[in-house]
Amino acid sequence: MKKLINDPNDVVAEALRGMALAHPELRIDQTNRIIYRGDAPVAGKVALISGGGSGHEPLHGGFVGAGMLDAACAGEIFTSPVPDQMLEATKTVNAGAGVLHIVKNYTGDVMNFEMAAELAQAEGIDVESVIVDDDVAVQDSTYTAGRRGVGATVLLEKLAGAAADQGRSLADVVGVARRVNEAARSMGVALTSCTVPAVGHPTFELPEDEIELGIGIHGEPGRQRVPLQSAKAIAEMMVEPILADLDFSSSAGVILFVNSMGATPPLELYVMYSEIAAILEKAGATVARSLVGPYITSLDMAGCSVTLLRADDDLLRLWDHPVNTPALRKGC
Amino acid sequence: MKKLINDPNDVVAEALRGMALAHPELRIDQTNRIIYRGDAPVAGKVALISGGGSGHEPLHGGFVGAGMLDAACAGEIFTSPVPDQMLEATKTVNAGAGVLHIVKNYTGDVMNFEMAAELAQAEGIDVESVIVDDDVAVQDSTYTAGRRGVGATVLLEKLAGAAADQGRSLADVVGVARRVNEAARSMGVALTSCTVPAVGHPTFELPEDEIELGIGIHGEPGRQRVPLQSAKAIAEMMVEPILADLDFSSSAGVILFVNSMGATPPLELYVMYSEIAAILEKAGATVARSLVGPYITSLDMAGCSVTLLRADDDLLRLWDHPVNTPALRKGC
Repeated sequence: MKKLINDPNDVVAEALRGMALAHPELRIDQTNRIIYRGDAPVAGKVALISGGGSGHEPLHGGFVGAGMLDAACAGEIFTSPVPDQMLEATKTVNAGAGVLHIVKNYTGDVMNFEMAAELAQAEGIDVESVIVDDDVAVQDSTYTAGRRGVGATVLLEKLAGAAADQGRSLADVVGVARRVNEAARSMGVALTSCTVPAVGHPTFELPEDEIELGIGIHGEPGRQRVPLQSAKAIAEMMVEPILADLDFSSSAGVILFVNSMGATPPLELYVMYSEIAAILEKAGATVARSLVGPYITSLDMAGCSVTLLRADDDLLRLWDHPVNTPALRKGC
Repeated sequence: MKKLINDPNDVVAEALRGMALAHPELRIDQTNRIIYRGDAPVAGKVALISGGGSGHEPLHGGFVGAGMLDAACAGEIFTSPVPDQMLEATKTVNAGAGVLHIVKNYTGDVMNFEMAAELAQAEGIDVESVIVDDDVAVQDSTYTAGRRGVGATVLLEKLAGAAADQGRSLADVVGVARRVNEAARSMGVALTSCTVPAVGHPTFELPEDEIELGIGIHGEPGRQRVPLQSAKAIAEMMVEPILADLDFSSSAGVILFVNSMGATPPLELYVMYSEIAAILEKAGATVARSLVGPYITSLDMAGCSVTLLRADDDLLRLWDHPVNTPALRKGC
């Protein structure tokens, strides 16, 4: 294992310390592993919290800031944060207008966020939760009952964050979040495994001429292994199951998100983007907005994922709303 | 070789097509491989052009936009663009206020940009050039007489771009660019080689327990190979030669740029950031601004580089000036 780390057990804490140093507008609670806006709680605003196992950076800590999340809870790598952490985050950023928990659909995250929400409610905080489950690859998986939450999480945090920033009520922000999850579908592919620092070797072995279609963001199995093919063929294998699952031809426009799993460079991502855009055009789906880059990753995995969101006019306006976080900035 | 590509010979052209599709505010000239601002030429503004071999994305195309570059010329992977391309870019974005060519110090780039500048001058365009040579690792190298141009290029494009956006004259913008190059130093490290698509195998072999200190952004040799060590030890080996080369203790503040070579994820970059910040504090250098992420890469290489810029008040103000490009946004 070749990584730029010290003790594998200290990676998450040390990285968070680095983040807080590099982005002085953020604060961390070292004990609890919470990253939060330095200006939180923001008066009158619905607060947004997400979190989950580390190893998917910039998700979620890189999305803390104006127009997106108020706080993120970082668990150990690929391990859910604990309810206490989520409760503490909730209390830290709650401004009295309510708090939204954004939860990717993995068993540990769902259970722990549920417990945290109950504890917060017991303290009189108005908490709502939205589960993200956009991955069409598999129905149930190693870590999941139901579909996994993947790329749509990034779009949902951006769009619900914009709604909260506009001063909308908790019910309205929850409504935006649910609409995003219902209208988003994703599919991923791995060219290589990731390597968890504390494990020290790749999570799985993938022959030099094979790829894993429908990979999970923890390296958990996807749909099938297929021979390595051209970007065009891989794009088709990724987009077809999405279009079969939801009709993207009739909407104000599609938000197309092409994501690197970590080690796939921009050149390849843009080649994929070009192929995916061509498929969508043929399918009668109009791309209205795009996001291309490493936003929800799996450590050092090579590969990519595609997320399509069938947007309405309100969602497109929310997409264009300014956002200012370490990993996502728009509206300058 | 596992890559998300079609024909290895088409990677650059297909990626540029994807970029133009994903970022409709940019235009490409398909024949000439130029990416330029859709609103160019910008009346009254000094125009900034850079370029070089592809494979370092987001450099340079991802930095085209308001507050940074007006155009970028993309060569084949690790191969200089040709003078005609640079001339065409110069003519496309020239608004009559002069054009600055930002050139990384590699023999092909220097020669071709020099020729392009002469051709443009013959057509009556006021062109100045600035060479970037910030890499302290080696004096001469495979592709270079003198030091190589690496991470400072990103900072220089940002800062000179801000100066041009503020309406400063060509002489003033050139002055900013020269000041940045004189006050910036960089050093890189590779954990793995990159693989050039048209070659199909890694550029060099690096044993599982060794790293290459002072690596070049084309995978060309650095200073030495040393055993893989802790992030803390590697940070020291990278920062010490920089501090030995230039005094960073007396300035308005240091701009600290920790860059991924491509495949190194944010967790590791922030661990490195934390270590580097600690070393600088001990050395009496005050970090005033930070940039952390993959900005000048070497395809799928794992590793990182560090760039320190000894800033004055003017440079810090230019750093804070808004910028709006696909890969770098600030000032929202």
